[in-house]
Amino acid sequence: MPINYTKIVRSLPSSVPFVGPEAQERELDRIFDARIGANESVFGPSPLAMEEMKKAMNSIWMYGDPENHDLKNAIAKKHNLSSKNILVGEGIDGILGYLVRMFVEQGDNVVTTEGSYPTFNYHVNGYGGILIKANFRNDHENLDELVEKANSCKAKIMYVSNPNNPMGTINNANTIESIIEKLNEETILCLDEAYADFVPENELPKISETNKQVLRMRTFSKAYGMAGARVGYCIGHPDLISSFDKVRNHFGMCRISQIGALVSLEDKDHLNLVIEKVRNSIQKLKNIAKDNGCEVIPTYTNFLAIDCGLDGLFAKKVLDNLVSNGIFVRMPFTSPQNRCIRVSAGTEEDMELFKKFFPIALNEAKRF
Amino acid sequence: MPINYTKIVRSLPSSVPFVGPEAQERELDRIFDARIGANESVFGPSPLAMEEMKKAMNSIWMYGDPENHDLKNAIAKKHNLSSKNILVGEGIDGILGYLVRMFVEQGDNVVTTEGSYPTFNYHVNGYGGILIKANFRNDHENLDELVEKANSCKAKIMYVSNPNNPMGTINNANTIESIIEKLNEETILCLDEAYADFVPENELPKISETNKQVLRMRTFSKAYGMAGARVGYCIGHPDLISSFDKVRNHFGMCRISQIGALVSLEDKDHLNLVIEKVRNSIQKLKNIAKDNGCEVIPTYTNFLAIDCGLDGLFAKKVLDNLVSNGIFVRMPFTSPQNRCIRVSAGTEEDMELFKKFFPIALNEAKRF
Repeated sequence: MPINYTKIVRSLPSSVPFVGPEAQERELDRIFDARIGANESVFGPSPLAMEEMKKAMNSIWMYGDPENHDLKNAIAKKHNLSSKNILVGEGIDGILGYLVRMFVEQGDNVVTTEGSYPTFNYHVNGYGGILIKANFRNDHENLDELVEKANSCKAKIMYVSNPNNPMGTINNANTIESIIEKLNEETILCLDEAYADFVPENELPKISETNKQVLRMRTFSKAYGMAGARVGYCIGHPDLISSFDKVRNHFGMCRISQIGALVSLEDKDHLNLVIEKVRNSIQKLKNIAKDNGCEVIPTYTNFLAIDCGLDGLFAKKVLDNLVSNGIFVRMPFTSPQNRCIRVSAGTEEDMELFKKFFPIALNEAKRF
Repeated sequence: MPINYTKIVRSLPSSVPFVGPEAQERELDRIFDARIGANESVFGPSPLAMEEMKKAMNSIWMYGDPENHDLKNAIAKKHNLSSKNILVGEGIDGILGYLVRMFVEQGDNVVTTEGSYPTFNYHVNGYGGILIKANFRNDHENLDELVEKANSCKAKIMYVSNPNNPMGTINNANTIESIIEKLNEETILCLDEAYADFVPENELPKISETNKQVLRMRTFSKAYGMAGARVGYCIGHPDLISSFDKVRNHFGMCRISQIGALVSLEDKDHLNLVIEKVRNSIQKLKNIAKDNGCEVIPTYTNFLAIDCGLDGLFAKKVLDNLVSNGIFVRMPFTSPQNRCIRVSAGTEEDMELFKKFFPIALNEAKRF
């Protein structure tokens, strides 16, 4: 019996951009003792937000506000912008899907970095776009190459994550600002700033909200500790922002998540506490790495790329050993970045476990 | 400055399929006293589910399981199916978007009923599909006309809501089963059964899970009282179900919502209680209608279409008056269904308010 999928969909695999830790747990038939692989925030959301979300459970029978009115206003206030500059969506993943849909038709070019965020690539493939990839340069996204490629192929979108995932590196504000000037006018810069809350304000680029070529992605999944709530947002020119209304799932936001995100924004003390806890935990990870003779990549995020000292095959062995010992971590996909494993900030208990099992994993990897 | 949207997106309005009640409240500068317009369940979710969702707040820092493993298994068990027959998504709205994306290319035909669910139409327009519409027949979806149109235009999708929204009517099980047999093999039947939990099991069609042409949409937004949580699901052949993995937002589900839906399924007592409360409330609405000399449309849902006795203009006046008095209700979009207003089951207080303001609204509408 014929099933008449679209041409694009027929060509796609039924793939998952990431295997989740729960799937690994089911396969291993054990629960991870340390969940420090998805750059979630073990320090959780604002206690005030948790309290309000619990109270709001009485209103879960109601659809959320499809306009995200109150949350957009609060986000706008945080950034000193108008709510017309803000789009709220089901995590950055969801927003990236809408963005790609708005700009990418079959055969259109899109520029990104080899080994950068796979879910963006998933969306580009999903709409029939052609991915053109720059390489990392010294574990940083290579902005020069990205712009050169975007300009020469008239890319619809150029994706830059800053700070970068999976390496944790940052490109400095001036460089980002200068590539925007160099970018041809047919390309939208998608600036994924999921980890921006961990970066000092003055190290982030200044981008005018009247710029019609830049969309900045932010999230409540990282520093705000609400990955499970699915709240992301996007900052940009009102024309770009309003066009998401053409394609988005208007009633897609969980009402409880809207409320949680709103209250989170008010609790700056908690945010600062998380940033400090992350800093301490990253310092511990650095010490553990050093104690085991490993270099680390300087990070501006809540995770650390630890150079295991050899190639991707070796790092994969280290990772597999950690995973089999109940430590969930991940690693970059491409060479030479895949000489590293990527470890998220965690609780003191998480760090103790990593301290215990990392040398074991290194030794085991060396033996086999 | 050119912004290179896709051809389809350039042609779309920045529209919202529905204006939410919150937007109306902001415009009216008052909170609705009775929120009985969106067919939400004022009776709320299972108290057990609420309790578990509150507890689960401690885990909101973690992404939800992108495979929805436990929830899919629980849903499969409810329907005596395999989890391979189940897709979980961000409400039926989200799933409808994925469905349309999988099948509809620019210029493809899609069949639905004039005045049926606008969010489905929004998605079809959004992917460049062409909507071909049958008309209601005696306030029922006209299955004969739908199939005839789907077969003659080789529609990619034929959308049928059963029970129907906004009228609340049902087509009997045999008729649905027989149109599936008549449907040409190139068309997928999208059977939107959002209100199926209010229908006695034996009045719903029997559809083999080996049928590759039918996808049934279900939700936790209605009888399960969790509209704000955004959990819908889809039942179908494993080949169809797995193909959603090509396009869906894998990490789109709120973790708390996954847990709430799972626990809801176990609390059959609450579900039965809600069904009984809905029945009582609908009976009250029928009485109020009758007391005001209005006919009602027999309903199989948690809402009632009340025939205001004249045309759409008149019903709109009735509706506007109710809204201005703090009673949120909606009405059908198309003639002659728009002679009705659509009122959801509510609390006793909601019913008292409706009882008070409906005659006022009718009188006011007659005066002007």
